[in-house]
Amino acid sequence: MKSICVLSGGMDSATLLYKLLDEEKEVKAISFDYGQRHRRELSQAVLTCSKLRVGHHIADISFLKDIISNSALTSNTQVPEGHYAQESMKLTVVPNRNMIMASIAIGWAVNLDYDEVALGVHAGDHAIYPDCRPIFIEALANIAEIANYKPIGIYTPFLYMDKGDIAIEGQKLNVDYSLTHTCYNGLVKPCGKCGACVERAEAFVKAGVKDPLL
Amino acid sequence: MKSICVLSGGMDSATLLYKLLDEEKEVKAISFDYGQRHRRELSQAVLTCSKLRVGHHIADISFLKDIISNSALTSNTQVPEGHYAQESMKLTVVPNRNMIMASIAIGWAVNLDYDEVALGVHAGDHAIYPDCRPIFIEALANIAEIANYKPIGIYTPFLYMDKGDIAIEGQKLNVDYSLTHTCYNGLVKPCGKCGACVERAEAFVKAGVKDPLL
Repeated sequence: MKSICVLSGGMDSATLLYKLLDEEKEVKAISFDYGQRHRRELSQAVLTCSKLRVGHHIADISFLKDIISNSALTSNTQVPEGHYAQESMKLTVVPNRNMIMASIAIGWAVNLDYDEVALGVHAGDHAIYPDCRPIFIEALANIAEIANYKPIGIYTPFLYMDKGDIAIEGQKLNVDYSLTHTCYNGLVKPCGKCGACVERAEAFVKAGVKDPLL
Repeated sequence: MKSICVLSGGMDSATLLYKLLDEEKEVKAISFDYGQRHRRELSQAVLTCSKLRVGHHIADISFLKDIISNSALTSNTQVPEGHYAQESMKLTVVPNRNMIMASIAIGWAVNLDYDEVALGVHAGDHAIYPDCRPIFIEALANIAEIANYKPIGIYTPFLYMDKGDIAIEGQKLNVDYSLTHTCYNGLVKPCGKCGACVERAEAFVKAGVKDPLL
């Protein structure tokens, strides 16, 4: 089985990459430069791929800034603080982001004659991000099956797990979380206030281990 | 109704743009620079939008060249001659192109609070291009409905028409076909040999009018 891993540089997709290798799949990773506020996410993705000796491509989709500008993750809007499930976190939604990234990864998979695209979406994202929900993943799998001569599978093993479950899985896989980045405010040491940091902290508590970034 | 028209610069999407305006929709157009061999397609799209006073954005997705390179439309492979329905025309398939373009257009529509994305796909493309077939359009409409907080419609009025029917429709709409480009070999005067030119010539015959580019 040959798999393209969509790798953000965060905990979830890093754990996914380790999991794909543990499943003895042939793997390449793709990250996206979509004009996110902080480059650190991308540089951590590079370090993880380098450590694991995985082929890695960064696709420049920063043109999206020109047409998709109303997200706090790409513009100068203040990043909201607090818990992910809060209404204010809707400011962090980048319109159609996962469909755009998945469609490019599917194109790459077709070109490489790979079998599947793997995404690190999980249950903690369902409340706020429509394009992380099971109904979206089902629709994505449906279109990926028929959009090209070669059907491409969509692999989302964390779809019904929360970030804590992922961190537990990551402990078993020996994921090096010091090479991940989570903070929406771009701080190397997590700010602890933004939604992403709050969720990361909860995940390490559930897994019963210390965040190596703290 | 507010509509994003995916505009290639060819006959089909130009006719679609005129049709959307005829239907009194508020329209913006988007074209894609994906490293196609000939820039003329894009410059014709600019001229058509300028003539119709339609807001137009060209999205630079030329990074696709790096990961999706095995199409005659983007690489140095010789463009095959002959009729579209022939097996050799599969060389002109760009992996997952329509899903990638549609997903970006959907993102723009969400950002602008527009209602739909319009695509000029037609029955003449069904034989060779999987991402122009009704089953693909159905899957696309399905995912566009649920990928974001705002459902985006997919409008494909030419899905069961051939290019000749589109040219007939274009005559009624007074489409200026001198501002379109079709030839895969990039010639201003159609080469008459590539699959695209053969199909264009057949369309004008069916519509009973002369191609203004000849």
